[in-house]
Amino acid sequence: MIDFETTIAAISTPSGVGGIAVVRVSGKNAFHICDQIFTSINGNKIADTKGYHILFGKIFDGDRVVDEVLVSIFRNPNSFTGENTVEISCHGSLYVQQEILRLLLKSGAVLASPGEFTQRAFMNGKLDLSQAEAVADLIASKSEASHRLAINQLRGSFSSELSNLRNKLLTFTSLVELELDFSEEEVEFANRKQLTDLAVDIHKKIENLAKSFRLGNAIKNGIPVTIVGETNVGKSTLLNRLLHEDKAIVSDIHGTTRDVIEDTIVINGVLFRFIDTAGIRETNDTIENLGIEKTYQKMAQAEIVLWVIDARESIDNINKMAQNILSQTTDKKLLVVINKNDLIDDAKRQEISLVLKQQESLFISAKKEENIHTLEEKLYHISQMESLGQQDIIVTNMRHYEALCQALTAIERVEDGLNSGISGDFLSQDIRECSHYLGEITGEITNDEVLGNIFSHFCIGK
Amino acid sequence: MIDFETTIAAISTPSGVGGIAVVRVSGKNAFHICDQIFTSINGNKIADTKGYHILFGKIFDGDRVVDEVLVSIFRNPNSFTGENTVEISCHGSLYVQQEILRLLLKSGAVLASPGEFTQRAFMNGKLDLSQAEAVADLIASKSEASHRLAINQLRGSFSSELSNLRNKLLTFTSLVELELDFSEEEVEFANRKQLTDLAVDIHKKIENLAKSFRLGNAIKNGIPVTIVGETNVGKSTLLNRLLHEDKAIVSDIHGTTRDVIEDTIVINGVLFRFIDTAGIRETNDTIENLGIEKTYQKMAQAEIVLWVIDARESIDNINKMAQNILSQTTDKKLLVVINKNDLIDDAKRQEISLVLKQQESLFISAKKEENIHTLEEKLYHISQMESLGQQDIIVTNMRHYEALCQALTAIERVEDGLNSGISGDFLSQDIRECSHYLGEITGEITNDEVLGNIFSHFCIGK
Repeated sequence: MIDFETTIAAISTPSGVGGIAVVRVSGKNAFHICDQIFTSINGNKIADTKGYHILFGKIFDGDRVVDEVLVSIFRNPNSFTGENTVEISCHGSLYVQQEILRLLLKSGAVLASPGEFTQRAFMNGKLDLSQAEAVADLIASKSEASHRLAINQLRGSFSSELSNLRNKLLTFTSLVELELDFSEEEVEFANRKQLTDLAVDIHKKIENLAKSFRLGNAIKNGIPVTIVGETNVGKSTLLNRLLHEDKAIVSDIHGTTRDVIEDTIVINGVLFRFIDTAGIRETNDTIENLGIEKTYQKMAQAEIVLWVIDARESIDNINKMAQNILSQTTDKKLLVVINKNDLIDDAKRQEISLVLKQQESLFISAKKEENIHTLEEKLYHISQMESLGQQDIIVTNMRHYEALCQALTAIERVEDGLNSGISGDFLSQDIRECSHYLGEITGEITNDEVLGNIFSHFCIGK
Repeated sequence: MIDFETTIAAISTPSGVGGIAVVRVSGKNAFHICDQIFTSINGNKIADTKGYHILFGKIFDGDRVVDEVLVSIFRNPNSFTGENTVEISCHGSLYVQQEILRLLLKSGAVLASPGEFTQRAFMNGKLDLSQAEAVADLIASKSEASHRLAINQLRGSFSSELSNLRNKLLTFTSLVELELDFSEEEVEFANRKQLTDLAVDIHKKIENLAKSFRLGNAIKNGIPVTIVGETNVGKSTLLNRLLHEDKAIVSDIHGTTRDVIEDTIVINGVLFRFIDTAGIRETNDTIENLGIEKTYQKMAQAEIVLWVIDARESIDNINKMAQNILSQTTDKKLLVVINKNDLIDDAKRQEISLVLKQQESLFISAKKEENIHTLEEKLYHISQMESLGQQDIIVTNMRHYEALCQALTAIERVEDGLNSGISGDFLSQDIRECSHYLGEITGEITNDEVLGNIFSHFCIGK
């Protein structure tokens, strides 16, 4: 648990050497602690300086100058944490960063735990819990789409939707409870039809939020695309082509993540994650063998199945394979890629098109780099990410999803109760439970264990 | 060459993901460019805000919010570069950093070249050239000692010493040239004795600066220590012990350097670099074979030679080896380490001490970790780093050293000229040359090629 008597300090910029780095200090004694090691060029004390002002000066270790720095001052409550905060902008040498941190700790600050600045912001009411979680998501965002979801969540769109729902539940519960107070008189204040409409409306809204998690999760971790097909149809070449197109961007992003994500590309700002089906290449020859457990599992993980076939394959075989694949992908988005387009003639092309006319399909040549860009556009189009409006509320967090599912179960009980005409006190209990789970998301209702778990996944310095 | 009409932008914090990152913008249009993509919470424009003030607000890409940021404003000439400067402190996601940079470039900024912020500071007279170079040294500093040298140089101690010298040379040359103006009258304004004293004084000062480079270079890159000794005396175990003691610190530092430095440790804030003499272990058995070319070369690189012997070695052999080693290390600092101290008795210990009584020596046991800390203290003591006062001027830069050597040659010619009584115009030319080389260090005299070479070694964003 946070001890608000302490003042915390940490290096907040990425670890390593750079032009500049920032050491952040927050808490009751932030100004006093920094004034002990900092002397401004004009003699002004940090403690006497207004918020949103900057001082230039030197950090001293006794008589020794450690660095020339800029110091930004933020006064309670007008800071990220809501506490007195100082940001020391120093030269970006590791030695200097560590020395300044050491001096701060020596002067009375304690090292911030992971996410403690954000946790303090939450505890001081500057952010609700879902916004605090958005800070971590924002920092980790790997694509335009995941960034957009994080920034919307940070700006409170999800929070205000939840707040609306909880207000509705409050109205609901007060109507029901008013009835309870007068229960002996058998008055029915709350119109049952009206209450049912309200419950249905709340149900629908919660359900939509919960449903959005599948998409939100895909955006955050990459839309899973499983590439299937027989051996030697050119799956690897195709994947390399796709990866090559965005190699620079992919590398940039990967260098920053701790966990290894294989084979992701960003198309039009959306992250796609390719799932390997190498297994079938090694152990099988024909598409019939797709039936093996492993490949089923990998196809089950997919949002999109990319079925690659060799353009020279016989029409009979294509027909046979298509039936097999289609039966396995009824709940998936399927894109058929006919590779080695350069090795067939127009007649064959028309035959294949006829067989696959119900399917989204594309002729390409991975080897000759033909239609690769069109394939990317098709993937993007099929993902339906283009319809992702800026204002959409999309749940990206497993914790939120689980709470929504529980709220959903509770509101379903309310509906059942209304239908079966159960008594107001039972209704009221279920409504309160629904509200409770929604409140867990924003942190209005929470406990130390949940908080500890959330903030332990932050980086230090945030 | 710098085009001062352009406004530059770059990410100034270390590359990677962190709590926060800083994007820096500097130049004539810095305020205008930032105002195009930034909207402050209270509606204030950057262009209308005083220097050393901070605004809170949002970065927009059209209607889309990219991030919530803090913007620090510095007005010409009160900024690092001396130009209008804006520092945008954003969330430390790579995506956000790159988006903000992209928007700045779209709005009219150009990407800063490596070191361009510092180069602009130099061009605008905020720093001289040796101070600009100190900025890069400061960022790269790996130990307390190298940091101290960089910060002293940044604060201008070297610059003012050079300025003093150039003033003296100016007095010198004006005395000589006054004489030239009246040469037909054969008046001798400048007392030759006085001139000679002045030349000797200047010579001594330049020589001391040039001499300090050996130390400065050692501090910056690590004091070179060559470990020599026969096979199986425990050199590797000793090295591992030494490295182990500081493993964490070493790792921290290594992660940040591009070039691989093998086997360095920091003792009391001073970096020591160990030079391997594995060669003699593989191909030779006895100390006599130290004579091979390779080992000589490695000993020649050393500032300190650490000679390791097996305590069980016969006194005869130790005597023989000592003569060999001593003849090779006349200009080195030698420390004799008698290893495997746990395997001998007091009598043997006294015999060895007697043989080595002229030498700095120490009994240790690498295996039992006996006296390792004392060995470190001895190394530190022998390096004479403890006498390194805070105010010492120590040259650390090869370019400066070369310029000092050339200034030294010029002042020597002046002295010779005075001794041989050459004419004032020749004297004057050599004095001017000496001054020229000193001026190259601070950048009072420079050219584009030199500048380009210096700043190309900076990181982008500084």
